[in-house]
Amino acid sequence: MTNDAIKDVVMIGAGPSALTAAVYTTREDIDTTLYEKAAVGGLAAITDMVDNYPGFPDGIEGMTLASQLEKQAERFGAKIEYGDVSAVRVEDGMKVITVDGKDVKAKAVLIATGSDYGKIGVPGEAEYYARGVHYCATCDGAFYRDRPIAVVGGGNSAVQESIFLTRFASHIDLLVRSTIKASEVLQHDLKEYIDSGKITIHLHTTTDEIVGADGKISTVKVTENGQPREIAVDGVFVFVGLKPNTGFLGGTGIELDELGLIKTDQKLQTNLPGVFASGDVRSGATMQIASAVGEGATAALSIREYLEALDKK
Amino acid sequence: MTNDAIKDVVMIGAGPSALTAAVYTTREDIDTTLYEKAAVGGLAAITDMVDNYPGFPDGIEGMTLASQLEKQAERFGAKIEYGDVSAVRVEDGMKVITVDGKDVKAKAVLIATGSDYGKIGVPGEAEYYARGVHYCATCDGAFYRDRPIAVVGGGNSAVQESIFLTRFASHIDLLVRSTIKASEVLQHDLKEYIDSGKITIHLHTTTDEIVGADGKISTVKVTENGQPREIAVDGVFVFVGLKPNTGFLGGTGIELDELGLIKTDQKLQTNLPGVFASGDVRSGATMQIASAVGEGATAALSIREYLEALDKK
Repeated sequence: MTNDAIKDVVMIGAGPSALTAAVYTTREDIDTTLYEKAAVGGLAAITDMVDNYPGFPDGIEGMTLASQLEKQAERFGAKIEYGDVSAVRVEDGMKVITVDGKDVKAKAVLIATGSDYGKIGVPGEAEYYARGVHYCATCDGAFYRDRPIAVVGGGNSAVQESIFLTRFASHIDLLVRSTIKASEVLQHDLKEYIDSGKITIHLHTTTDEIVGADGKISTVKVTENGQPREIAVDGVFVFVGLKPNTGFLGGTGIELDELGLIKTDQKLQTNLPGVFASGDVRSGATMQIASAVGEGATAALSIREYLEALDKK
Repeated sequence: MTNDAIKDVVMIGAGPSALTAAVYTTREDIDTTLYEKAAVGGLAAITDMVDNYPGFPDGIEGMTLASQLEKQAERFGAKIEYGDVSAVRVEDGMKVITVDGKDVKAKAVLIATGSDYGKIGVPGEAEYYARGVHYCATCDGAFYRDRPIAVVGGGNSAVQESIFLTRFASHIDLLVRSTIKASEVLQHDLKEYIDSGKITIHLHTTTDEIVGADGKISTVKVTENGQPREIAVDGVFVFVGLKPNTGFLGGTGIELDELGLIKTDQKLQTNLPGVFASGDVRSGATMQIASAVGEGATAALSIREYLEALDKK
């Protein structure tokens, strides 16, 4: 196994999960290359303040955390390259990864491409990302204690997270494009909050613009039953689906769950031997940096074990 | 459910996993009490330098990391109390935890008591803990690049970790009290390293003392086949078993694996509804802070879900 053209491990993505895995593999002298098509650090890098990543009692800026993870992986020798992975296939046990149209060979692969939150695509949404517009109630709900917010969406997660957010927000306007699509159970639970006045539901309502000033949100402009109106809020939470970054896996035969997330076993190996997955792209992901990082460490130990067994053959 | 005497969540142990879980639960206003019988921060707190906890590119002292985790949990309202938990039982769905002889009631329990490394109990072992005497090759092996070390033990993990440590150490003296008890496969693998001179094996050898000066190890004193001798090493790795802190679970009916670690499902729930486990005490644990922390976050989300379902009843 001295073919220099064959890498030990290729990691697809360079968010917290892959960067952690790379700290572990490179610290053990396992040759590791990460391919990232957008920003190193993943969603963490574009998060304003991370309050619940363990080890930083006063919180840490997402960008700072991302750059520290990058530095740590590079300290032990991880190679982080920009490149768009369009395909992964297995040939005679060797993993072949197509990066920017060229084939790269590796003994093992970690898929840690994460998931993106579904966007509504309205003015103000990108501008106030993570500073008023949020996609994760667990992460950012606590920033809205006793403050009015809006929630956009009408499916299971929009209803579930609205109910969860009532423990923080003073009031929630739930903006639903058509009608509520959530399960009967959730709709039943929701009714209680509507009755108590904690949640006001707006059906047949499109969200048109998120308006703010001085870096803060003040208003969300909507069209409710054909009539334009403005609702004063401090924050907007959007729950219109999750988009796992698995488009490049078509044809690989890697098993996905019903949400399009990658299925793994306890060791975080997919159904293809030597191909592992961790973080937000994995089935069962919590969309939490702490979990992504933990899975990165676990995946790295599994990868080491896989490589050791391979080298013995 | 307004009985003040019933706590929402009791966490047993206050290491990285429980402290992380507590950051999550308390940030969501879930009343959380942790009981710790020894040191807050668990094994992390007594680790000299943690090099692979993600987010600290230059490493962080274990004690500093532990105190930052503690601060973070307390910032959101976690109550950390010293107390020895001797039993857990379930009565009509309510969890009853015996702390210092008194019963405490809770709706949900997280067991995060960790595991301790088996000790050999010789002079110098405690004194040089984490500063020359180590119990985790993944954690500390990389500190011994091109340096001579000794490994104590003769079972599967001692042999496996010795082989792993050859990627760092210049030479390994493997100190085996009687004979090698590892699997045939591992013994076969080991032979290759003995033949190449990378590992020297000492059978019927007791480790008597770890000797050092100026805070560094210089020598390990052994008795080999009845003869005393000294071996010059920079570090000693001890692999004589893992002791999960599950002694208090006798009679609870909580399922353990063959190593005595607690079995859980994907949501980190044990076979008892409402009783969860995370970190080093859980079956499949990697003994890595990153993984323990990730599981803490995941367990907290599962606990929230459990409590929400409970409150609806």
